[in-house]
Amino acid sequence: MADERCKVVLLAGGVGGAKMAEGLDGLDDIDLAIIGNVADDAEFHGLWVSPDIDTVTYTLAERIDRKQGWGVADESHRALSVLAELGKDAWMSLGDRDFGLHIYRTERIRNGDRRSEIAADVAKAFGVKSRILLPTDDILQTQIKTDPGWMSFQEYFVREACRPDVQDIRFEGAEKAQATPEALAAIAEADLIVIAPSNPLVSIAPILSVIGMKQALQAAAAPKIAVSPIIAGKVVKGPADRMMASLGLEATALGVARHYADLADAIVIDRQDAALEASVEALGLRCIVDDILMKNREDKLRLARFVVDCAALPASRRACA
Amino acid sequence: MADERCKVVLLAGGVGGAKMAEGLDGLDDIDLAIIGNVADDAEFHGLWVSPDIDTVTYTLAERIDRKQGWGVADESHRALSVLAELGKDAWMSLGDRDFGLHIYRTERIRNGDRRSEIAADVAKAFGVKSRILLPTDDILQTQIKTDPGWMSFQEYFVREACRPDVQDIRFEGAEKAQATPEALAAIAEADLIVIAPSNPLVSIAPILSVIGMKQALQAAAAPKIAVSPIIAGKVVKGPADRMMASLGLEATALGVARHYADLADAIVIDRQDAALEASVEALGLRCIVDDILMKNREDKLRLARFVVDCAALPASRRACA
Repeated sequence: MADERCKVVLLAGGVGGAKMAEGLDGLDDIDLAIIGNVADDAEFHGLWVSPDIDTVTYTLAERIDRKQGWGVADESHRALSVLAELGKDAWMSLGDRDFGLHIYRTERIRNGDRRSEIAADVAKAFGVKSRILLPTDDILQTQIKTDPGWMSFQEYFVREACRPDVQDIRFEGAEKAQATPEALAAIAEADLIVIAPSNPLVSIAPILSVIGMKQALQAAAAPKIAVSPIIAGKVVKGPADRMMASLGLEATALGVARHYADLADAIVIDRQDAALEASVEALGLRCIVDDILMKNREDKLRLARFVVDCAALPASRRACA
Repeated sequence: MADERCKVVLLAGGVGGAKMAEGLDGLDDIDLAIIGNVADDAEFHGLWVSPDIDTVTYTLAERIDRKQGWGVADESHRALSVLAELGKDAWMSLGDRDFGLHIYRTERIRNGDRRSEIAADVAKAFGVKSRILLPTDDILQTQIKTDPGWMSFQEYFVREACRPDVQDIRFEGAEKAQATPEALAAIAEADLIVIAPSNPLVSIAPILSVIGMKQALQAAAAPKIAVSPIIAGKVVKGPADRMMASLGLEATALGVARHYADLADAIVIDRQDAALEASVEALGLRCIVDDILMKNREDKLRLARFVVDCAALPASRRACA
């Protein structure tokens, strides 16, 4: 019997993306595929670390450290403390359980396995129900230009704690990064495409930078709904608002809507931003107003339900709306 | 001012070697260089593990798990448990602190650093006073032939818990493994060379199998004293006695003496084996009888002192005897 569930594709970054993923993953009547962000991946101590993908995986596997929103619960840092004693930089907090995953991933990459196959196997081994897809199997890395010059995303985000002003952003490898067949197929078959309330510039933009990704999204029959990561001019977590402002974008839900105007059909903004509704609609986007702050699991499930229900799904799939 | 301390070189394997190393390391009037065994090294999960070298390093750094004689004290196994969940074999017990070292070593090997330089840097970072030298920077790996066929040393030793009968032993890579300049220099400059009570067949033999090593030892001016790993026909720890027997060697202190007759000038055997003294001396070896079981730090220091003192050191160095 064919799977009659509504097929939802979520484009997601790290913590905000994982929250949206958790909500959608909790709905029994949808079949969720998450296209995550690989552009904050980096090598540490010779091991390949994939922070955003792992945050989504750990969240859906119910292993996440709920307090910090990333990393593994019940974690220790023995391996890292030895690396520090041996003179290695230890600003990237990598726990012992987390190292187990990085060791596994790195060995398989060295054996020539596709990164997306590895991510799928990890999700499966950890009992994740939804599919976690990579936008590309190629190396794609966000770089941030600040006053001293270009640095890797993790150097900016973790080592420098997002303090420097961002002057420019680039995705190293984007000119050669090919979309994975799994991501393209999921987009083509989707009944609904959701853009998570993730950082538009460093979580969603790198996914869109992959060769073939924007075209696939534009060609997709499914409606595309973005959820604003900005509420009342402030980001819930991370540097998105400051990044947008320093790059000359308006750090509001309207700025986000403008950023996604070419891509999305609708945007969900918070009730606190209801006054922006007319301006958003003037961009040619349907504007949906709701409570979008996700503080707990109930909030996540409710917002996910709301987004799925209010999507203008094609008639044949209207049952799941 | 020149270092007037007696220069001692110790050939050592894992646990037994580490005990002898600890005793010698504890003597203030000697300058100790340990040539360790690298032939039980193996790659696990894409990381290079060097069990015997690490046992010596952890012992001299006072990080060893005293109860088991190997591994790190206050250890946990979070990374390994994740690897097991991901379907990897986890019979090789690798702790989280231990993984820190393996990650460090592997990254440096991949960066092209010499293995002996890495081992020296680790020992230094961990505060080890004596020098830990590798016999070779090349890959040299003990393989054990048992009934089902050849297996790696760790497969035999850990996975199979030394249960299978040993039919043959070979050192893969020995035909190409060059001695390190540091090991050759230490041997040439030594005032005394001690062969630790380690497994003669899989701890000491691989060291001797390296190109140039036997010749260097034969050419060395220093007296060479072996300490028997076998007391009253039984090994203190490990499979040396069963291995010797199954390969047609006599599993006694006399068998050990016979094995080292071409190499050593003297052998220290236990009081329990005093009856073997004449047979040992008939081999052309000086036989020294003492209590050689090392149960605690005092035993180790006392045996080390005894071995150094009873060595027939060259006249110019007699002060340290």
